[in-house]
Amino acid sequence: MSNERYLEDLHVGDRFHSASYTFTEAGIIEFARQFDPQPFHTDPEAAKRTIFGGLIASGWYTAAIAMRLRLQSDARIAGGMIGMGVEEVRWPRPVRAGDTIQLEAEILEIRPSHSHPDHGIVRVRETARNQAGEAVLSMVTSLWVPRRP
Amino acid sequence: MSNERYLEDLHVGDRFHSASYTFTEAGIIEFARQFDPQPFHTDPEAAKRTIFGGLIASGWYTAAIAMRLRLQSDARIAGGMIGMGVEEVRWPRPVRAGDTIQLEAEILEIRPSHSHPDHGIVRVRETARNQAGEAVLSMVTSLWVPRRP
Repeated sequence: MSNERYLEDLHVGDRFHSASYTFTEAGIIEFARQFDPQPFHTDPEAAKRTIFGGLIASGWYTAAIAMRLRLQSDARIAGGMIGMGVEEVRWPRPVRAGDTIQLEAEILEIRPSHSHPDHGIVRVRETARNQAGEAVLSMVTSLWVPRRP
Repeated sequence: MSNERYLEDLHVGDRFHSASYTFTEAGIIEFARQFDPQPFHTDPEAAKRTIFGGLIASGWYTAAIAMRLRLQSDARIAGGMIGMGVEEVRWPRPVRAGDTIQLEAEILEIRPSHSHPDHGIVRVRETARNQAGEAVLSMVTSLWVPRRP
């Protein structure tokens, strides 16, 4: 695990990029049937008659895919990607079947943990963009990162 | 759909409650294999050796379940539950197999949309609690709600 990053390896302004993921109609519908069963997420025909004009991914599906992409990025954190909390989740544009997204992350802030001196908290701005470069999801995530032992 | 709520039907301080949901080990693992494949979410044995001391649900699984519970609440919004954004997502305690959660919501603020006078934005504090009454997920969600036609 020599390529895992500890707190000492991270710096404000560092940027990371994930693998990419292409959404399918089947995936959008399957997730929505389980977790967000609304016509604009589950029924391509009914979705045409909604304000979205067609099937769109649940924002929570996009967020779940972003979690997967976070693990498939060049920012491998020692001990895993442990989120303490998230601020400012936005879905500025819908995601539709066929869209391909990639996550980019930029470190905003690094601070020590007072209660756990062997860890720190790293605030990261994350943006998922589609194939046109348009943001479809953005958030600011606080990660729990160990110091090098 | 006479029991759907429009902007005029909502008031600051109104509280709503959802149905409840009990997490299973199989559900926790299935979600994590797809979206958050880390040992503390996918492998009960390996999870014992992590800082969590056992298998815990991905925070994004809990968030997805919260979306489902939002639709199974007594706050049925006309046109559907359309989130504009979310603030302050926190997972104050882990969720484990066998835990039963319920979502409660309280309206914090209601404001008109300037760009779309037929809609408004309703900010809601949502808290998912487990069977012991402990918060396991909290967030502030902004919903897009139509006025009565």
